[in-house]
Amino acid sequence: MKIRFWPASLSSSLSSIAAVTVILASSVSFSQMSPSSVTFTNNLMPRPASLTATDGGFVLTPEFRAAATHFDDPRLDGAIHRALLQIRQRTGVPLPAKAAPAGTEAQLTLAVQGAGEKIQSIDEDESYSLAVTSSGARIEAATVVGAMHGLETLVQLVQPSGSDYVLPLVSIKDSPRFRWRGLMVDCGRHFEPMDVLKRTIDGMAAVKLNVFHWHLTEDQGFRIESKLYPRLTGIGSNGLFYTQQDAKDLVAYARARGIRVVPEFEMPGHSTAWQVAYPKLASGTPPPAVRTQFGIAPFALDPTREETYQFIARFLGEMATLFPDAYMHIGGDETPAPDWKTNPRILAFMKAHHLKDSPALQAYFNTRVLKILTGLHKHMVGWDEILNPALPKDIVIQSWRGEASLAKGAEQGYQGILSAPYYLDAMKPAATHYLADPLPSSSPLTPEQRKRVLGGEVCMWAEQLDEHTIDSRIWPRTAAIAERFWSPENVTDVDDMYRRLNVVSIQLEGLGLRHLSHEDAALRSLAGTQNIDQLRTFASAFEPVSFHDRYQEQRTSQLTVLNRFVDAVRPDPPSRYRIAKLTQSFLKAPQSDTADQAALNQWFEGVSNSVPAVEQQMKHSPLLAEAQTRAEQLPGLAKTAAEAIHLLSTGAKAPAGWKAGKLSEIETAKKPSAVVRFTFIDPLTSLVNAVQE
Amino acid sequence: MKIRFWPASLSSSLSSIAAVTVILASSVSFSQMSPSSVTFTNNLMPRPASLTATDGGFVLTPEFRAAATHFDDPRLDGAIHRALLQIRQRTGVPLPAKAAPAGTEAQLTLAVQGAGEKIQSIDEDESYSLAVTSSGARIEAATVVGAMHGLETLVQLVQPSGSDYVLPLVSIKDSPRFRWRGLMVDCGRHFEPMDVLKRTIDGMAAVKLNVFHWHLTEDQGFRIESKLYPRLTGIGSNGLFYTQQDAKDLVAYARARGIRVVPEFEMPGHSTAWQVAYPKLASGTPPPAVRTQFGIAPFALDPTREETYQFIARFLGEMATLFPDAYMHIGGDETPAPDWKTNPRILAFMKAHHLKDSPALQAYFNTRVLKILTGLHKHMVGWDEILNPALPKDIVIQSWRGEASLAKGAEQGYQGILSAPYYLDAMKPAATHYLADPLPSSSPLTPEQRKRVLGGEVCMWAEQLDEHTIDSRIWPRTAAIAERFWSPENVTDVDDMYRRLNVVSIQLEGLGLRHLSHEDAALRSLAGTQNIDQLRTFASAFEPVSFHDRYQEQRTSQLTVLNRFVDAVRPDPPSRYRIAKLTQSFLKAPQSDTADQAALNQWFEGVSNSVPAVEQQMKHSPLLAEAQTRAEQLPGLAKTAAEAIHLLSTGAKAPAGWKAGKLSEIETAKKPSAVVRFTFIDPLTSLVNAVQE
Repeated sequence: MKIRFWPASLSSSLSSIAAVTVILASSVSFSQMSPSSVTFTNNLMPRPASLTATDGGFVLTPEFRAAATHFDDPRLDGAIHRALLQIRQRTGVPLPAKAAPAGTEAQLTLAVQGAGEKIQSIDEDESYSLAVTSSGARIEAATVVGAMHGLETLVQLVQPSGSDYVLPLVSIKDSPRFRWRGLMVDCGRHFEPMDVLKRTIDGMAAVKLNVFHWHLTEDQGFRIESKLYPRLTGIGSNGLFYTQQDAKDLVAYARARGIRVVPEFEMPGHSTAWQVAYPKLASGTPPPAVRTQFGIAPFALDPTREETYQFIARFLGEMATLFPDAYMHIGGDETPAPDWKTNPRILAFMKAHHLKDSPALQAYFNTRVLKILTGLHKHMVGWDEILNPALPKDIVIQSWRGEASLAKGAEQGYQGILSAPYYLDAMKPAATHYLADPLPSSSPLTPEQRKRVLGGEVCMWAEQLDEHTIDSRIWPRTAAIAERFWSPENVTDVDDMYRRLNVVSIQLEGLGLRHLSHEDAALRSLAGTQNIDQLRTFASAFEPVSFHDRYQEQRTSQLTVLNRFVDAVRPDPPSRYRIAKLTQSFLKAPQSDTADQAALNQWFEGVSNSVPAVEQQMKHSPLLAEAQTRAEQLPGLAKTAAEAIHLLSTGAKAPAGWKAGKLSEIETAKKPSAVVRFTFIDPLTSLVNAVQE
Repeated sequence: MKIRFWPASLSSSLSSIAAVTVILASSVSFSQMSPSSVTFTNNLMPRPASLTATDGGFVLTPEFRAAATHFDDPRLDGAIHRALLQIRQRTGVPLPAKAAPAGTEAQLTLAVQGAGEKIQSIDEDESYSLAVTSSGARIEAATVVGAMHGLETLVQLVQPSGSDYVLPLVSIKDSPRFRWRGLMVDCGRHFEPMDVLKRTIDGMAAVKLNVFHWHLTEDQGFRIESKLYPRLTGIGSNGLFYTQQDAKDLVAYARARGIRVVPEFEMPGHSTAWQVAYPKLASGTPPPAVRTQFGIAPFALDPTREETYQFIARFLGEMATLFPDAYMHIGGDETPAPDWKTNPRILAFMKAHHLKDSPALQAYFNTRVLKILTGLHKHMVGWDEILNPALPKDIVIQSWRGEASLAKGAEQGYQGILSAPYYLDAMKPAATHYLADPLPSSSPLTPEQRKRVLGGEVCMWAEQLDEHTIDSRIWPRTAAIAERFWSPENVTDVDDMYRRLNVVSIQLEGLGLRHLSHEDAALRSLAGTQNIDQLRTFASAFEPVSFHDRYQEQRTSQLTVLNRFVDAVRPDPPSRYRIAKLTQSFLKAPQSDTADQAALNQWFEGVSNSVPAVEQQMKHSPLLAEAQTRAEQLPGLAKTAAEAIHLLSTGAKAPAGWKAGKLSEIETAKKPSAVVRFTFIDPLTSLVNAVQE
């Protein structure tokens, strides 16, 4: 570099490494501290199975080194490197980011017994222990996967203390409650670039999820390259798909983070893309083109022709070379297949094989596919619909229908994974997902049956999702669900969950996710200006409606541009929980609780005051103007809140008709508009209802 | 997807594409408008050479199609696709994102004469014309590169009008003022991931830059894979480097956007990494390791040994297979090389070859390297120091020393590129860079000499830069400089530049850059909370100090973690220009200008009021606490502003000693602290000085 100002004497004064070390040490304060001045703040998510803490901490300094005790492993070294980079970035302490050679004296030692399975199974030992003492930290684990979980915990432990960053003195013994802790991402309806998937996997690793379920084929697009059947992507996608190298890269990326990749190839329904590419696979008239509209397509693979199974066998054989996991997902859901009820050839086949109806025909199909998978040494996973007595007990049912369906499967001897309560596109708050337990102790299942519930999977369907909005739909809510899958059943304190979720959310952005940054960027784009202080305040009072409600209002298709106000705002934004809590607290003693009263008044006043500036911006942005009705409603609702709070705090009665009028106003505000909801409708209703009339 | 709520009737009602089209058309308003109701707002950056506008506009609808008139070209199709995607994302209009086949009737037609050069040269015809009429838009260009510039202009033209988005009726004829419009990124001192470079290139294309100068080797790291000399990266880097495939990918990515890639391999100085990897290349004792400290290293390649040239010839030959551009940059700067003055063998060589001093020896070296490059059919580019009468006139001098040095070279017959005024790490405001002209009409150069000034290059040196901070250091300032390189000399209205820069800045974030989002993300990380309303306000009053000042205060090295307050805040943030303008305006009529007075008071009050909350956050963040002194100073400075404004607006005199005291307070605030500067020091000084005493 050309440094015109560079002092001539500088290069010599800097010419030795030693000199630099001194300079570094003097530029940051690393004074040793009294360990007892550190009080542990438990920000861990998921919470470990067992943790004890004592006052005191180990101060992080530039001399901090990490090394395995006796066991060099590239995957472990990679995990140590990433953990140290995170610690550097969080603290500014310039510690070396690479693991020292095994056996080196170090402040972080990793005693790991072995590398773990070559292909991570659901029985991989994921347990670890972590102890921080005044002389450093030690992680013990049977496998590298367990050690990686320990490192993620270590990163979350780092906390400020005085002018230092420390590891608090803790002793942790930890292992997961469920073996299968997944996140499904639908890359069929909207393609997601590789870097989005990689940062999603980084986020999964941070919260100890261990299965990336990759939904690769849909009516709207076939997203994985087949060299045997190139038309699958050539004709069956809009040109956006993953190459085989991409798939291998992602599998390796996930494995390096202790995460399995379970691919899903939807059949016999949700298979428009297959049939457009290879019309001979269709049960009836092949579809004219890959669909851009959503909903259940009336097209299914033809289960009566041997060629169909030959095709599937060759295709899945090819996929097995890319995806080493022992499980393969064949979808199997939502196959209305009108042709199965009308095509004479299919009806004749059913009669000849004593298949009484479409479900029976699908069970036949599944049995055939199962045979193919068994030949490939793969277990079959499918959605609820594959559950059929015709199928053996070693298949896994992923339940989108709910806990009852899952339990029914377990009773019949099938293994299962719960997904129904973890649909992110329902736009429910984290707390709702969090409190849904895959296997509550109240469940009537026998111990044997309980073992069949492998765990749960978060589902991120992509009808109304693109690469810009995916992060804020997945995160941070998925971190709360990850805790449900990992931590003991009795970890259910919602207040504490939200407190920690706010912390882990920032950690996740540090990994490259943009779930927090996206909102402002989208608002700037909508308003066409960087002056979004008022718009940001306005937006903070809204959340997206559910997938279903948006579909009803907007008839979204794959062509819908996802750049609306609804795409900017976040599900379960901070205002939702905060206003609910403040209201709950205020209503306990409305005439004396001045703090909550003031906080509520201030918030409602703030969002209401934002409206005039936002309405000005709407005049210059047709997209933003979509929320015009919401802008008109907000000041009235805020005024209602203020009136209710005033009445409650003074103990005065409302004038006759006030309550009915206000409840009617609230009902109006609940109606669809701009496909967003007010976050405070429920607490506002409580406030109004609490007023005496 | 499992959609539990999906109405049974839906799949049939949605089963034809025609039905979907109707639904889309009804869900968004695309009514034809009276064209005369549109008034053109010129947000274009860079401004075109010539533009005429008339009232009226062409309304964008889902039926909008783009097609070349007669010429199918994959590069053009890609550019059309990207432009249409941007328009979709900006407007929400679900127009098809792909170019229709050439010759299709379309609302955007591209009449392009040819594909352009196989390897884009500095003489590529980049001109285009763009006409928008009431029936659509037409771009004409001699080459695809020209057409791509036209498409970028088209994207910037899109503006809201009523409830629509329109292309205003304009007629543009445009071509660049300079042929060489570059951005240099130093990937040696800090490695930048490929996705960062790709989005940087996207940003360059948006503002019509055409040279990505890739600084690939430094004392701190050799960043490009050599298969002939694998130790160059194996030993000469910290493991972070670009594979040959990466280099090919980036060259292709840039070419697809009309951008040349000029690689730089620094020699004979700035070459510690070469020498660590291959000690035989060293002039003296090879350095012990790749440097982590910055500054000028006392190591140079040995220009006296034939093996050195054999090595360079083989290496550059290998690089020529990756980088097709006609230019190759050999650095050549800052080569103090103490060994050249002491090594007897080198001294003997100099005597034998009649080389009187180090510059003469370096000229000899350059002559030898030039011969190698000529053999590879490459032109040599180097920094000022390569300018030496011993070298022929077909080399290009990149001037970091300044306009005078550039002019001197031109007078001597050398071609040149100006970089001195475009060093982004000087942390100067966009306006300063913007007003620096590579070739002002006042220059004494003859017409013949003027032709030798090829253009300019922005330089982004990376001592204090990482993948998180690079965007906000490059953008949006580089967009203003890009205008300097492209637009006519007389385009110098700084107010208008800032107005348009704010618009283009949002467009650039839409391309994936994070220069605006980064600040908040970094503040959240620093504070450890999402509650950054006050911290954001506080931070808005600061900007980073220059590279040099930061080095003086912090002694940054490659090990310094770049996660400080200074790394969060942006160079030339909005407050800088805004407060300067308000102050300038207020001082014109301080006793009557109540609007500016109120705006100034409000701003100073706002930043001052943010301090208590920020100081609370500092208690929990050692990193944030670095700015403690700044937090202590801010309320006093704001109070001074308020006092000065009050005195000026009332016409009252200040008490004796007031001014001296305040100026002293300001002087103190100018002193280094937390490696950030107050953005308002100059206008505050003006306010105080304007007060009568």
